[in-house]
Amino acid sequence: MLYLIGLGLSYTSDITVRGLESIKKCSRVYLEHYTSILMAASLEELEEYYGKKVYLADREMVESGCEEILRDADKEDVAFLVVGDPFGATTHTDLVLRAKKQAIEVEVIHNASVMNAVGSCGLQLYNFGQTVSMVFFTDSWRPDSWYNKIWENRKIGLHTLVLLDIKVKEQSIENMARGRLIYEPPRYMSISQCCEQLLEIEELRGTKAYTPNTPAVAISRLGAPTQSFKSGTIEELSRSDCGEPLHSLVILGRQCHDLELEYLLEFAEDKLEFQKAVSQDQEYFKPEPWVPPIEEED
Amino acid sequence: MLYLIGLGLSYTSDITVRGLESIKKCSRVYLEHYTSILMAASLEELEEYYGKKVYLADREMVESGCEEILRDADKEDVAFLVVGDPFGATTHTDLVLRAKKQAIEVEVIHNASVMNAVGSCGLQLYNFGQTVSMVFFTDSWRPDSWYNKIWENRKIGLHTLVLLDIKVKEQSIENMARGRLIYEPPRYMSISQCCEQLLEIEELRGTKAYTPNTPAVAISRLGAPTQSFKSGTIEELSRSDCGEPLHSLVILGRQCHDLELEYLLEFAEDKLEFQKAVSQDQEYFKPEPWVPPIEEED
Repeated sequence: MLYLIGLGLSYTSDITVRGLESIKKCSRVYLEHYTSILMAASLEELEEYYGKKVYLADREMVESGCEEILRDADKEDVAFLVVGDPFGATTHTDLVLRAKKQAIEVEVIHNASVMNAVGSCGLQLYNFGQTVSMVFFTDSWRPDSWYNKIWENRKIGLHTLVLLDIKVKEQSIENMARGRLIYEPPRYMSISQCCEQLLEIEELRGTKAYTPNTPAVAISRLGAPTQSFKSGTIEELSRSDCGEPLHSLVILGRQCHDLELEYLLEFAEDKLEFQKAVSQDQEYFKPEPWVPPIEEED
Repeated sequence: MLYLIGLGLSYTSDITVRGLESIKKCSRVYLEHYTSILMAASLEELEEYYGKKVYLADREMVESGCEEILRDADKEDVAFLVVGDPFGATTHTDLVLRAKKQAIEVEVIHNASVMNAVGSCGLQLYNFGQTVSMVFFTDSWRPDSWYNKIWENRKIGLHTLVLLDIKVKEQSIENMARGRLIYEPPRYMSISQCCEQLLEIEELRGTKAYTPNTPAVAISRLGAPTQSFKSGTIEELSRSDCGEPLHSLVILGRQCHDLELEYLLEFAEDKLEFQKAVSQDQEYFKPEPWVPPIEEED
């Protein structure tokens, strides 16, 4: 059996009881280690908690065949641990399909991921549109396909969850060129950098998918003991220090009800200013008021 | 302290270790009992598992003041359990706001909910648009505000998660009129009924937000031991018996990649037919092909 087990967001004890019981049965345990990190626990703490050796699985191991992971999984129990949920931000459908082709049974044990826990900022999950990813811009690579997606969401009044880039086990171009397996320290995008990139592309395009005054919610260390939220305009958040990673951002859409706004105001530095920003922003992409059809006279 | 604890989707052991540890500390434990049900566990099993009495909290108790729940929560630990995640399909921001106003500390312990576990059908969560709710139609009440939302999602290529109505603790009109506190047996909408309602409204409007041939995924008992998926057209699923509740539905958008389709095909009765339906449906709302701008001659 191959168990795909979500670890939740932060604590070792965020694993479900069923997930933990399953790990105990496994002869090998892998931790997916390239799309996210568990914030309040180290690898050693996980190993102690599970009473098992935990092998780190990097992108290469998972995407190039998964042979090592699936080895003997038709006869033994193997666990593949994923921070958040196994089908959260990154799906592991490929691993499941490969397992099924080898007649290996698969059991998924779900957990919270940023995709649903983001609801704790107070905005209804119902009103989120498509999710976008923001990657680190480089001098020569400034991908902005997310821009149109935010625009599409906002045109129909929806919020956008922006997931921020993390780089683990990254090689410098020099080391890569020389074939040296030396890795750079991990990097996590901050909310301020994300907002700067948002503003840069908006300035470049000038089509007002959002503006510097568009309200947003900065989410820091979601699910961790030091979790915090900050409501502000994109411009305000671009100057804001939100502390340790991981960070995410929600760009508001028009559909923000009174109760949701009341909740967001708790996280605003200047409540009145934020409320004003929301009211103004709600005017964008507002549908035309309904006009009764002109009745034709007989 | 008020703990808001997600129970996950099905098993008693779907609770997180941290959630279970928190319940053990609580002097009172409430279970939100009007938006969802835990599929593989009864109230008695929960009580035995926690070693605590569990009080059912109906909509009235939660929405009309929450006094009972918050009583003494500034001095004692109280748990409010929610199937799925506390900020999943139904947010409990109101309860949190009331607690904060009474200077009661709140801790949220997240878990999987349908909003993220739906990813296990193989479709990327990134490409889901706004979520809609389908309620039971009655003779005089056939609300269809979800129609435009599905349309909006599909215009930009996104999938739509449709959450199906459940009715617990419902009074008949007669009993309500006579003030008799007699409740009807719980009712859970089936996928076939949902698809029938979808088809009825499409036929009425005729604006092709979707068609009878639009592909969808029927999700039955998500996260439960008997979980199952079925890929088919809306028309096909309207004639399909998906067994015991709970059911959900995903209506596909245009953005369906090869790997996702490969995964969905596993759940199709007639793989070729389903593949054809997807290809045809992807032609709807397809953006116009890009045409290079005509260069003006100097």
